[in-house]
Amino acid sequence: MSTWSNWEVFRGELIGTSILVLFGVGVCAAVTLRFSKAKAAGWVVIAFGWGFGVLAGAYTAAPLSSGHLNPAVTLGIAVDTGVWSQVWVYVLGQLVGAMAGAVLAWLVYYAQFDANREKETAVATLGVFSTIPEIRNPVANLLTEVIATFALVLPILAFGLTKGLGTSGTQTLIVAFLVVGIGLSLGGPTGYAINPARDLGPRLVHAVLPIPHKGTSDWGYAWVPVVGPLVGGALGGLVYTMAF
Amino acid sequence: MSTWSNWEVFRGELIGTSILVLFGVGVCAAVTLRFSKAKAAGWVVIAFGWGFGVLAGAYTAAPLSSGHLNPAVTLGIAVDTGVWSQVWVYVLGQLVGAMAGAVLAWLVYYAQFDANREKETAVATLGVFSTIPEIRNPVANLLTEVIATFALVLPILAFGLTKGLGTSGTQTLIVAFLVVGIGLSLGGPTGYAINPARDLGPRLVHAVLPIPHKGTSDWGYAWVPVVGPLVGGALGGLVYTMAF
Amino acid sequence: MSTWSNWEVFRGELIGTSILVLFGVGVCAAVTLRFSKAKAAGWVVIAFGWGFGVLAGAYTAAPLSSGHLNPAVTLGIAVDTGVWSQVWVYVLGQLVGAMAGAVLAWLVYYAQFDANREKETAVATLGVFSTIPEIRNPVANLLTEVIATFALVLPILAFGLTKGLGTSGTQTLIVAFLVVGIGLSLGGPTGYAINPARDLGPRLVHAVLPIPHKGTSDWGYAWVPVVGPLVGGALGGLVYTMAF
Amino acid sequence: MSTWSNWEVFRGELIGTSILVLFGVGVCAAVTLRFSKAKAAGWVVIAFGWGFGVLAGAYTAAPLSSGHLNPAVTLGIAVDTGVWSQVWVYVLGQLVGAMAGAVLAWLVYYAQFDANREKETAVATLGVFSTIPEIRNPVANLLTEVIATFALVLPILAFGLTKGLGTSGTQTLIVAFLVVGIGLSLGGPTGYAINPARDLGPRLVHAVLPIPHKGTSDWGYAWVPVVGPLVGGALGGLVYTMAF
Repeated sequence: MSTWSNWEVFRGELIGTSILVLFGVGVCAAVTLRFSKAKAAGWVVIAFGWGFGVLAGAYTAAPLSSGHLNPAVTLGIAVDTGVWSQVWVYVLGQLVGAMAGAVLAWLVYYAQFDANREKETAVATLGVFSTIPEIRNPVANLLTEVIATFALVLPILAFGLTKGLGTSGTQTLIVAFLVVGIGLSLGGPTGYAINPARDLGPRLVHAVLPIPHKGTSDWGYAWVPVVGPLVGGALGGLVYTMAF
Repeated sequence: MSTWSNWEVFRGELIGTSILVLFGVGVCAAVTLRFSKAKAAGWVVIAFGWGFGVLAGAYTAAPLSSGHLNPAVTLGIAVDTGVWSQVWVYVLGQLVGAMAGAVLAWLVYYAQFDANREKETAVATLGVFSTIPEIRNPVANLLTEVIATFALVLPILAFGLTKGLGTSGTQTLIVAFLVVGIGLSLGGPTGYAINPARDLGPRLVHAVLPIPHKGTSDWGYAWVPVVGPLVGGALGGLVYTMAF
Repeated sequence: MSTWSNWEVFRGELIGTSILVLFGVGVCAAVTLRFSKAKAAGWVVIAFGWGFGVLAGAYTAAPLSSGHLNPAVTLGIAVDTGVWSQVWVYVLGQLVGAMAGAVLAWLVYYAQFDANREKETAVATLGVFSTIPEIRNPVANLLTEVIATFALVLPILAFGLTKGLGTSGTQTLIVAFLVVGIGLSLGGPTGYAINPARDLGPRLVHAVLPIPHKGTSDWGYAWVPVVGPLVGGALGGLVYTMAF
Repeated sequence: MSTWSNWEVFRGELIGTSILVLFGVGVCAAVTLRFSKAKAAGWVVIAFGWGFGVLAGAYTAAPLSSGHLNPAVTLGIAVDTGVWSQVWVYVLGQLVGAMAGAVLAWLVYYAQFDANREKETAVATLGVFSTIPEIRNPVANLLTEVIATFALVLPILAFGLTKGLGTSGTQTLIVAFLVVGIGLSLGGPTGYAINPARDLGPRLVHAVLPIPHKGTSDWGYAWVPVVGPLVGGALGGLVYTMAF
């Protein structure tokens, strides 16, 4: 899959995914929490915040690990290339990085979380960290995540990610705008996890952090944004191998 | 027109146009339907959603078919180059791809469509799939589509699309922002089809799918977003040949 | 200034500026007029619409005339290079192109203009074509246009425009985002003409076209968006020559 | 740190930072002040206005000084490279440039500032020039600025800024979108100074300029957006040196 050492891959994915999730959880906090200057700034802010988080994280990680930042992307590349030896290192770095990024975002918005003194903000607080579907329907939600992640991984593979992301800034820019596009277009039903680490890591952090009135971490839904993206990523790898 | 086989062209246009329409119909659903997180997120979301759909689809299709994704673009290139032999393969792939993309977008928003239980949502439901003019005036609507498509095809030709879209990511990025710009600037009157496959494919899908309270598919208007873009694309090819 | 013939320069500037103004006047119509899907879509739509108009026009004109599209840019380059021989051809093409673009935008929004049946829309109608200051104060308005145009021309010169805009798509993309930035940041007081052709051409068209209830063309203000940008462009050329 | 003379570095940073702050303070004025066409245009406008200000300023300064425009970036590079000899020239140019940019922005919005005739606009007026936290909590505010600046400087270093920013327009574009992302995601609590010169320079100008009803310059908070970014920038340099 690469010529990087395990330690380089782990470091790159940890740093890159922590930046991605810092931006992503950060923008959800910015738009959701009271006493934020971006309160209620709208869906376009959410989509561009996550997209530019991918830009920042992927480009930072590029020299170390090629910047996957997402177990679904790593899985799609493995399905395509048949090389599975470092998958576990990638995924471990991504999960730890996603947790670190969520903690950083919590620190950035510490005073805002602390100012949430009302019980009814519990759902909003979880929504800063992890995805919550608008209509709770596991089959439909799963399908949404499968298709949205497929629409992420197939283009990334076609863009030639496997040939080294670090060589071209334009390629990373295109992937960032692809993620903005998925957010704008396909994020409406479930909030587009499209990345198991992005959803599971912050959910673990939400469960542990001492946030006032944080409410439940909604573990009953937690499997959907893990299984859906993995299925979508694998499908992306399969279709790429067959069609290109 | 290219050195690709018919089967490569068909595959490329089918995959690329299905991604384009998945994003495009998806963003219309995101902004229009109830129980979507992007509900009423505004025109800027529509325009960027379609534009990044072009980015994702064109870049994915580039290695197979150069990524036209639009019969009006294919027509403009044929008028300019005089090579007509693969036009039918391009258009067939685009139409089938547009239908596939509309079905995928419907699956992504399945629960949202299903939650539409009121009759008055019929117009909004068609608007997710196909364009509806704000003021129904066939001559004016046709003129809008002709000029808007001309403003798409002439720049694309000048950008050097005919010399191989796949060679430069920056070129695809510029075309994507061009499409965003057309949406922002020229989309107000008709919703900017500027692509016969983008409008006709999803309209056929709308006519067939079992969507609650979906209402009419408005076939009386369906010719405008087919004829207008084709005339605009041909004019773009003619002016390019004469002026450059 | 270039190795292009007068006829190539005229053609390039005419086509490029007409595309720029089609997008720019188009987006003002989109956001201003009733029965437009982008009605009241906000300042961000205006700024990106004009910026992507620059992208489309400059890139289209690049092979013919290097795509100035703006007498203030042409003046700044002439001040820097000392070559004045084709300035009149550039400016003539820009002015005719701006008028052509305004007519095209009027055709795109024909039904919308026609639906304006109330007298109080007169100011809004002029605002689609030309700039109107929020506070009418000739000295302050002039200063705003001088500084905003200076902030356009100095960076463009530093970006190396004089060394051939057509060679790099990235450069044109950066200029487009520069124009978006000027709109967002410096457009508040006067609506940022920053281009004499962009303001004067559409104003002439507004004076001539048979638009219902169009009101005055406000010729008393027309000199400000001509003189201000020319002074700002010349200053940009001077500072560039001195500082770089 | 570079092969440029002190006089080139000073000139480059002065010009580049003045453009950055002209755009940045300009966009805050555009969205905040009455009688501005962008009044209340939202957080997305603020974030893109500052980001495209970085684009314009950094690319303009690139041939002279590599375009740091920010003492925190200069500090992070010095920590990484160990070269400290020109740091004072960079910072001096940045501070003088930030003051010049704030004066230019005030001139652009002169009539708007002059029209503020009510006492209650005092806080809004300072907010045009310098950052004001939503919740005044020095420890939390400092932490926000440290992390947000760290998220700016570490990616910039990884993007290879130290190897010459001027060589690639794409790199500057990516840095600009990185700054947009920080604004969208991490700007909610404090308004993201992430640059001591950007906050201190305009605050000095606010203290001096004869603006009606301008109110206090809030010197009690002024140390936070200076110390926070410097700590974050130094941390960015340290982590880069250790991890890459």
